Amino acid sequence: VGEGVRTILTGSLGRFHADLSQAKPGAEISLSASESHHLLRVLRARPGAALRVFGGGVDFMARLVRCGEGTAVVILEHPIEPPPPPRVDIWATVPFLKGGRTEFLAEKLTEMGIAGFIAYSAARDVARPGPEKAERLGRVVLAACKQCERADIPPVVTASNLANALKAGPANAHRIILLERSGASRLGEVAASIKAESAGRPAVMVATGPEGGFDPAEIDACDHFRPASLGPRILRADTAPLVAAAVILREYGEW
Amino acid sequence: VGEGVRTILTGSLGRFHADLSQAKPGAEISLSASESHHLLRVLRARPGAALRVFGGGVDFMARLVRCGEGTAVVILEHPIEPPPPPRVDIWATVPFLKGGRTEFLAEKLTEMGIAGFIAYSAARDVARPGPEKAERLGRVVLAACKQCERADIPPVVTASNLANALKAGPANAHRIILLERSGASRLGEVAASIKAESAGRPAVMVATGPEGGFDPAEIDACDHFRPASLGPRILRADTAPLVAAAVILREYGEW
Repeated sequence: VGEGVRTILTGSLGRFHADLSQAKPGAEISLSASESHHLLRVLRARPGAALRVFGGGVDFMARLVRCGEGTAVVILEHPIEPPPPPRVDIWATVPFLKGGRTEFLAEKLTEMGIAGFIAYSAARDVARPGPEKAERLGRVVLAACKQCERADIPPVVTASNLANALKAGPANAHRIILLERSGASRLGEVAASIKAESAGRPAVMVATGPEGGFDPAEIDACDHFRPASLGPRILRADTAPLVAAAVILREYGEW
Repeated sequence: VGEGVRTILTGSLGRFHADLSQAKPGAEISLSASESHHLLRVLRARPGAALRVFGGGVDFMARLVRCGEGTAVVILEHPIEPPPPPRVDIWATVPFLKGGRTEFLAEKLTEMGIAGFIAYSAARDVARPGPEKAERLGRVVLAACKQCERADIPPVVTASNLANALKAGPANAHRIILLERSGASRLGEVAASIKAESAGRPAVMVATGPEGGFDPAEIDACDHFRPASLGPRILRADTAPLVAAAVILREYGEW
């Protein structure tokens, strides 16, 4: 969405995820089966091809050296400085939504820089995905990381209800529940007060509800959460989490 | 996405758009052909049915009184206070995008409260919609207005290129162009400076580019625009306009 380094990237075959916990220039790294498939079968890369490899917060220029039995082995060349993470770790806690809207949220929130993505089955929504959903969301998140130049991959958690979802966030997180037309303070003010009282990079868990709103039992599960409002217009369930993340990240100077 | 008045709404058949420029309680109003069709054929409403009618910034409780020859006539009962408009008029200027993403942007930005939606054919994107696109976007915007409780309908403009799109905004608008990794100030700072120098409810035109970035000629067309950045991560073309609107609206206390 603008000018920039995109043309530099077209010189390589794109970004591939790998375990880079022990990475340094000159190291040889094997890509996973799916990443190898994409590199070797879809893109038909040949030894010598330039690519980028990222994971765990680091990013390297690399070159394909071997491809045997469906596994691509690359040699790391030099590190690339990834974009700095936001100064706040946002754990988005959103309902499962129909029609690909959960995937959409996972994609957008990953680009925006959230620290973790938690999706739950809401009491007032019929979306009850099967166990394959977490895997699909993981693929969406990975693709978004590749696209937006993140070098880390936010964890994806799926939960059978909101109470279980809330357990997946960091224990020390600030916790916000977004309530429509509730008389609660605006989210921007809540985010500002969290910033004022927190040193370092705080974690903030933000829970939003489905189209039908939270069930009373779900609101009870959010005991000790700070209520916050997104103003007088009613935002859809796949709009509110995006606005919420944008507002909190703005408070921390992200944009 | 929360508790609230939603249950009140279920007592009526929903919100219908009409020309309410001369509206007062007791007035009889004919709905358009498409709104009549939805009320009479899809929802099978009968005289006496309660509904809401909105348009031009006002919103009324109403009741169906007649339905002859496919036209629904309603009588206005009492006005409902619509949500106040944001304290800034945002004119989102976005590229046409493939795969329903322009419609998606129109929906989300309408919910968020923008004043106008302008879509243009970008030099570096292949999306070149036909003349039916404006109509489809208009339907999406109308549906979003119904859902989010807006009583006004933001205009939709389509343009063959960015230069023409820019002519569609208010002449006195502040103008912002979002550039990736450009060294420009963060959008939040730009919005704060616009707020500091503007009295009343200013208009702000915000131009974002396609996935491939702006073409140099497009950037030239944005002469006198203030450049702004959305930080170090690369946002997709259908993410950046949402973040931009959220940030500017936050500056004006919307959330």
